[in-house]
Amino acid sequence: MVEGSRFYADRMKNVKASDIREILKLTEGRDVISLAGGLPDPRVFPREELVDIMRAIVEESLESALQYSPTKGATPFRETLRGFLSDNGVRVRSSDDIIVTTGSQQSLFLAAQVLVGPGDVVVVEEPGYLAAINVFNYAQARMVGARVDEHGMDPEVVEEKVKRLKGEGRKVKLVYANPTSQNPTGSTMTLERRKHLLEIASRYDLLIIEDDPYSFFTFEEDKPPYLKTLDTEGRVIYTSTFSKILMPGVRLGWTLADETIVLGMESLKQMVDLHSATLSQYIAMESIKRGIVASTIDRARAIYREKRDALIETLEEELAGLATWTRPIGGFFTMVELHPSINARKLLVEAIERKGVAFVPGDSFYVEEKKMNTMRLSYSFPPAEVIRVGARRLAELVKEKTPPG
Amino acid sequence: MVEGSRFYADRMKNVKASDIREILKLTEGRDVISLAGGLPDPRVFPREELVDIMRAIVEESLESALQYSPTKGATPFRETLRGFLSDNGVRVRSSDDIIVTTGSQQSLFLAAQVLVGPGDVVVVEEPGYLAAINVFNYAQARMVGARVDEHGMDPEVVEEKVKRLKGEGRKVKLVYANPTSQNPTGSTMTLERRKHLLEIASRYDLLIIEDDPYSFFTFEEDKPPYLKTLDTEGRVIYTSTFSKILMPGVRLGWTLADETIVLGMESLKQMVDLHSATLSQYIAMESIKRGIVASTIDRARAIYREKRDALIETLEEELAGLATWTRPIGGFFTMVELHPSINARKLLVEAIERKGVAFVPGDSFYVEEKKMNTMRLSYSFPPAEVIRVGARRLAELVKEKTPPG
Repeated sequence: MVEGSRFYADRMKNVKASDIREILKLTEGRDVISLAGGLPDPRVFPREELVDIMRAIVEESLESALQYSPTKGATPFRETLRGFLSDNGVRVRSSDDIIVTTGSQQSLFLAAQVLVGPGDVVVVEEPGYLAAINVFNYAQARMVGARVDEHGMDPEVVEEKVKRLKGEGRKVKLVYANPTSQNPTGSTMTLERRKHLLEIASRYDLLIIEDDPYSFFTFEEDKPPYLKTLDTEGRVIYTSTFSKILMPGVRLGWTLADETIVLGMESLKQMVDLHSATLSQYIAMESIKRGIVASTIDRARAIYREKRDALIETLEEELAGLATWTRPIGGFFTMVELHPSINARKLLVEAIERKGVAFVPGDSFYVEEKKMNTMRLSYSFPPAEVIRVGARRLAELVKEKTPPG
Repeated sequence: MVEGSRFYADRMKNVKASDIREILKLTEGRDVISLAGGLPDPRVFPREELVDIMRAIVEESLESALQYSPTKGATPFRETLRGFLSDNGVRVRSSDDIIVTTGSQQSLFLAAQVLVGPGDVVVVEEPGYLAAINVFNYAQARMVGARVDEHGMDPEVVEEKVKRLKGEGRKVKLVYANPTSQNPTGSTMTLERRKHLLEIASRYDLLIIEDDPYSFFTFEEDKPPYLKTLDTEGRVIYTSTFSKILMPGVRLGWTLADETIVLGMESLKQMVDLHSATLSQYIAMESIKRGIVASTIDRARAIYREKRDALIETLEEELAGLATWTRPIGGFFTMVELHPSINARKLLVEAIERKGVAFVPGDSFYVEEKKMNTMRLSYSFPPAEVIRVGARRLAELVKEKTPPG
């Protein structure tokens, strides 16, 4: 038989396999509490409403909902999305600025392919979202990191790096940020920093990707306005998803950006998958119209708040003074910074084998200076009580490894 | 406002906008019979069965069907697909060789990105499927065409071109073929040519993409075996779709290939869209299991056979001796070759404006020697009676333009 891989094109060198997956294979066949992945809790998903929606689709929209649809997204769905975004405080000029995608991942892939050429500089959060780092890598970007602390990405660091790289003659095009309930740290960028970041984008002629999977179900009343809403120059490419506000199974995301950027993404998407599932689009559209997205968001808020509390309370009880972490106002994650002598990758192996708990070591999320003593903990999937048990077991191990004093 | 397009990466130069779309805009606001597009007839789609399936999913598979799923496709769905393919005469080694994609288009995109580097030679059918030509173009392939006649792609031409290009030191990797009910010609490759093509692939160490959207509902009993089934060396990358055997709205396709090729496609798909809609996969799986795909195929066969007959009979009545065409054994299209003095692009404008009929000029489907006197006619969407009217009107125009003698 022919070995297919010897036919691979050189660009496959830019596709990185995840080494975390290899470590997490240790969990197979064991009874492990996973604080690693970021799966939504299925209790959040709608149920019977989906049967009603399917009946309505078959009776009223069969000829369009089951058919091919425009690459940019079904027109009535984009219009409904426009209303949803407006109602939720995201400034939208027109539904012409919206493109429906096969999940946020595709929004990132398309944006990176359209905008980032070989050697172009992209500023990413340090630590930042791994799947975004991967698409920029495939686009052959040169990535630099801007530190994230409890107030989000630091614009001063962004400016300093952009200034230096521009001085060196590099083409700096794009800043990638997940400003609300960031993956992996759980931190949210302050209003002041948001404004500052937009000023920098304007001064240095940059675009900003605002990746926003989590903002619709924050646990506190107070959240800063969207970068997209603060932006007056059309520099922000806003992207979000139905995975957290309805269900991942529809596999739908969208991008809201200046129409000229959307046009490039649309031309490319025509080759990538022609369009996203029409049926999914009609299900999501009906779910917005019937208030099912709103009720899903309410369930998400209640369920994930309880779980966040379970995790953060346990960390406070067990690890105060021995480690630091963010208290996320939304999303699925927090990042724990351990004593500098602890290597979280090594800790993970012991955590799985001796304590039956898994997490993701934080170093994978860095593009420049890796912090080996960090771990990302997710509270989205296991029940609150299981989260408490898992976090306690992990804390036992951390205490054991933390040097005295 | 910032003009986003000035941030485009150079690779966007390899994305071609369709000029046909521009011409077809002439149809807007007019009452035009379209023999241009290839939309399935919605009478083929399942209806009430979809409501039952959604109820079953919500009751029995909610936690998996509405959730994220593996990049390669939901495991039970891949297993069901394996059975479906076996039952339909496509040789499958194992479900490990199957990757689920967001439509055939994505199968082609992933295969091209994984296998074709800048300057690599891809042999395509002349005329061939436009969307495939586009993805190879984006992968920066050098394309050469192998003539298609009423017996499909000519392997002698493939060999001649491969030999010459290899002699020139070019890297020839891939042959792309749509061997059954080809788009745009409607022709089907004979068994003899299929065998010959596989011999050539073996001799010159090539891979073959067998793009197969139409074979499941051929109108005649007799159809040649799949390239994939004849292949003993793992050189054939087989790809198909649910768009014609269930409905386009699920936006699902698949590729069946040697596991090493599937692995590359999977790694890339992780970045492109992470996975295809899980809900669509469960709907398609249930549709296979409940015999709904089988009954959809039966409806498709009956409906499209009647329409093919309507088109071909009208052409025979009106244009015998003035033009030539294929009698397709399946699929949605035939291609008509007109008198060499007729330019089908110019004809299209007149056809729309004077006769209220649209088609796609054939020259777009060629990569080397464009035949300007060809037009692709589709019979998939309009009712049979409308097809007859459209074809008659078009024939009037053709008669008018054909020089005497």
